Amino acid sequence: MATRQRLSEDVCPVARSVDILGDKWALLIVRNAFDGMRRFGDFQRDLGVARNILSDRLRRLVDAGILQTVPASDGSAYQEYVLTDKGGALFPVIVALRQWAEGALFTPGEVHSTLVDKASGQPLALMQPAAQNGRTVSWDAAVVNKVAVVAQT
Amino acid sequence: MATRQRLSEDVCPVARSVDILGDKWALLIVRNAFDGMRRFGDFQRDLGVARNILSDRLRRLVDAGILQTVPASDGSAYQEYVLTDKGGALFPVIVALRQWAEGALFTPGEVHSTLVDKASGQPLALMQPAAQNGRTVSWDAAVVNKVAVVAQT
Repeated sequence: MATRQRLSEDVCPVARSVDILGDKWALLIVRNAFDGMRRFGDFQRDLGVARNILSDRLRRLVDAGILQTVPASDGSAYQEYVLTDKGGALFPVIVALRQWAEGALFTPGEVHSTLVDKASGQPLALMQPAAQNGRTVSWDAAVVNKVAVVAQT
Repeated sequence: MATRQRLSEDVCPVARSVDILGDKWALLIVRNAFDGMRRFGDFQRDLGVARNILSDRLRRLVDAGILQTVPASDGSAYQEYVLTDKGGALFPVIVALRQWAEGALFTPGEVHSTLVDKASGQPLALMQPAAQNGRTVSWDAAVVNKVAVVAQT
C-alpha cells in the first residue's frame, strides 16, 4: 500500500477539500449556516447530533477558517457561528450537492425544498462546469493535468 | 432533541446528497472515477485505504447507482467500476470542491493539479450559482423555500 501524504497537503485540490468537508455533519452544518443558522442549540436541534460531535465539528470548521465565532446578535452571553468569506465561498459546493440530488435522488413530483434567487423569485439555474468562453464542459471533455511530485529526500 | 427523519428521506436535497457523499472515501473514489480509474487495486493503491473500507464504500456507491460494475476492459476476470449517468452527473460537485480548494486552501503560487477543458487546453471557468438569466447569485442573494412537512399519523 502506498504511503499517502496527508490529504491537507495533497497537490489535488479535491483531496484538500475532502479533508475538511468529507463528513456529513460538516456539510450539514455549512448548509445550515447558509440558511442563517448561528447558534449551537439550533444546530443541535435541527441535526439531532450529539453535543460532543457537534462541538468537535464546529471547532474543526472554525479551525479551517470556514466559520468564525461572534458575540450573540441579541446581546446575550451566547456566542454564535457565522460563515467567513472563505466559508461563504462554499456556496457553489452546497448548490452542486443540492442540484445533483434534485435530479438524481427525488422521484418526479416528489416534494423538496427549493433554493430561490431573491431578486427574481425563481429557482437558480442548473450549475454546469464550463470553459472560459462559457461552453458547457461534460466530465469526459475535461482532463486533470497532474503535477510531478518530487520526493523529498 | 428532535427526532430526525433519515437523511435519505429528507425533503432537503442537500441532506440526501450528504447521506451518500458525506464521507471522504466516497468523494475520493468518485474523484478517481472521473479521472478514469476503474479497478479495486488501483483505488486501493492510490487512496491507501484498507480493503474492507474500500469494499464497503464501493458497494455503497454501487447501491446508490453512482458506480456500476462491468467486466474488465482487457478481458481478464477482474470486474471494474465505472460511473453511471447518475454518477457522471456529480461532475459539478467535484468541480465545486476543486475550485473552492484552489481559491481557499492553496497559497498563491503553490502547485496543484488543474482541471483542463480538452478542447481549449484551458482551465475550466470558475463555476458560480446563477439565476435563470445568467446573473451570478451570491449566497446572501438566495433563500431556501422550505416545504411544510405534514406529520404522518
